[in-house]
Amino acid sequence: MRIVVIDPNLPAVAAELEAAVEAVAPGAQVAWHPRFDREAVARDLPGAEVLVASRYTASLVPWSTSLRLLQCPAAGLDAIDTGALPAGVLLANTGHHERSIAEHVLAGVVVLRRRVREQDVALRERGQWASSTFDASLPLPLGLDGARVGFVGFGAIGRACWAPFAALGATGAAVTGSGRLDAAEHGLAWAGGTDRLDELVAGSDVVVLSAPLTPATTGLVDARLLALAPPGAVLVNVGRGPLVDEAALFEALRAGRLGGAVLDVWWSYPGGGAAGGSGGAAGGAPGPVTGAPGRCDWGSLPNVVASPHSSGITRQTLLARVADVAENVRRLRAGEPLVNAVPRP
Amino acid sequence: MRIVVIDPNLPAVAAELEAAVEAVAPGAQVAWHPRFDREAVARDLPGAEVLVASRYTASLVPWSTSLRLLQCPAAGLDAIDTGALPAGVLLANTGHHERSIAEHVLAGVVVLRRRVREQDVALRERGQWASSTFDASLPLPLGLDGARVGFVGFGAIGRACWAPFAALGATGAAVTGSGRLDAAEHGLAWAGGTDRLDELVAGSDVVVLSAPLTPATTGLVDARLLALAPPGAVLVNVGRGPLVDEAALFEALRAGRLGGAVLDVWWSYPGGGAAGGSGGAAGGAPGPVTGAPGRCDWGSLPNVVASPHSSGITRQTLLARVADVAENVRRLRAGEPLVNAVPRP
Repeated sequence: MRIVVIDPNLPAVAAELEAAVEAVAPGAQVAWHPRFDREAVARDLPGAEVLVASRYTASLVPWSTSLRLLQCPAAGLDAIDTGALPAGVLLANTGHHERSIAEHVLAGVVVLRRRVREQDVALRERGQWASSTFDASLPLPLGLDGARVGFVGFGAIGRACWAPFAALGATGAAVTGSGRLDAAEHGLAWAGGTDRLDELVAGSDVVVLSAPLTPATTGLVDARLLALAPPGAVLVNVGRGPLVDEAALFEALRAGRLGGAVLDVWWSYPGGGAAGGSGGAAGGAPGPVTGAPGRCDWGSLPNVVASPHSSGITRQTLLARVADVAENVRRLRAGEPLVNAVPRP
Repeated sequence: MRIVVIDPNLPAVAAELEAAVEAVAPGAQVAWHPRFDREAVARDLPGAEVLVASRYTASLVPWSTSLRLLQCPAAGLDAIDTGALPAGVLLANTGHHERSIAEHVLAGVVVLRRRVREQDVALRERGQWASSTFDASLPLPLGLDGARVGFVGFGAIGRACWAPFAALGATGAAVTGSGRLDAAEHGLAWAGGTDRLDELVAGSDVVVLSAPLTPATTGLVDARLLALAPPGAVLVNVGRGPLVDEAALFEALRAGRLGGAVLDVWWSYPGGGAAGGSGGAAGGAPGPVTGAPGRCDWGSLPNVVASPHSSGITRQTLLARVADVAENVRRLRAGEPLVNAVPRP
């Protein structure tokens, strides 16, 4: 069996993936493509039964004649052209990034609300004790105890993000696409459909976006919505950049109407595409990769915690994904239903 | 009734404190001293029945003739000379800082383990996507899921700090002075006495110090103990600076044997004294306050998150302390036992 892997993250756990695959498919060969290079993939893909990739385009169809399974090594399917994927090829995704995202989100929110960076730089670089205790001109910060956290989307990521906020005494609410979330089951104050998005934003000190990017959610967070947020609110985006109107967010932060933003996803990526870190054409090699994350001058704002679509990528996440990949290889060979199968027409 | 308040934090909630006191002691007068100025205090203290202060020295005894209650507006009593405090004066402390400390601790640990600052600066200032996804020369970070967190001291602060770590999938263990902690009750893997400190440090990816400073705990964390920590471990100190041998910690961080340190407490404070932020002689006025936090060049280390003894100071903490102060004023007048009374000989 031949398995082609096109992913910038899994090479960091290549030995673990090959061992896991060998255990369920002895003799299987794994071809590694840290980045999506169409010609290199075209050489390896013919004859492969399994493709592990978060990007699939119509251009790959001619070399997909042996393909039986497209295993996305992440959650987001937005860079996979499911319409082009040949009929009969099974599709599955994975996840396991939610706890890694959650710790990053909590940290970013606290860094902004508690002025962690400003205090650190002042004390270490200037010997200056920059807190309200020592300098009465500085604001008394707000803790998370009793703070209101609003979730836009409450799938695996939203739920994992909620856990540490809840442990620190915050209250939570959520709007979801289905509108069928049971608030009490998750310890939330309330839950509703997207028709209650305005209410959610107006009543949240922290707003966490983890909704999927669809035509209906593109530009969901615009200038009008941001103007409803309480003064000093913090916006977190761990969904996809285009959920948010970039210029509107930039202006709300520049003007100080929002307290800050924790941004892990962006409007543009190195190598092109706005789909996400793993689906891009850059990366996978040693050395710096550069590219503007959008059109605005994000470096000019002090109240942003920026990360390069990295919040979900830890060793824990990748090892759990490896286990899913190997399990689906086993199930494919055994003719069993896949883990995280994505229904196909 | 006259109440003298010597504290740099409570002035930020002065209106709330005066209203709360008025409700239980109509007509009470509150005299505010944002900083410990001995001569100014000497003018106000005679005739006062209640002193709200985290510092008390023998020099105040001559003016303490009316004093019935010394209410410490924080937890730490190390700047209160209880031997000098006249017999018959009741003593109480308060707390309520534990959740504010916990969110800061979690954030600081994640900032270090996930390279949050490095990624933020690279992306915003250089358009550089500095994660292992884009640059294979960078390390794959470790999440907290399954990480081992060891607590040295497990009072209110340790317990509150444990909550968000537990919510993110970490495992915990603790050593305490009494050695009588029930591990299962708190969801810890194990708990023991300080005789198991070596074992705790050797088996912890994150060590959180919140033990009280006593002669027995001064210098508890020394070069020998730090050498037992796993490579890359993060040390958190939210107890008191002198729990740790400053030079030993600095060297372990400089050499990269430790992954990082989250330091909220220090070896020296502006205005003198190593007791703590609230007990110092500096602060309380608008404007920068400077002073080296120790003897080492902490600004030279990239793997430290420093804060000026501010981790516990939020609006939530101070309002809860105000409630305790007012409640003890009420109980003092009613002859009822105090909240958080500290036994006196």
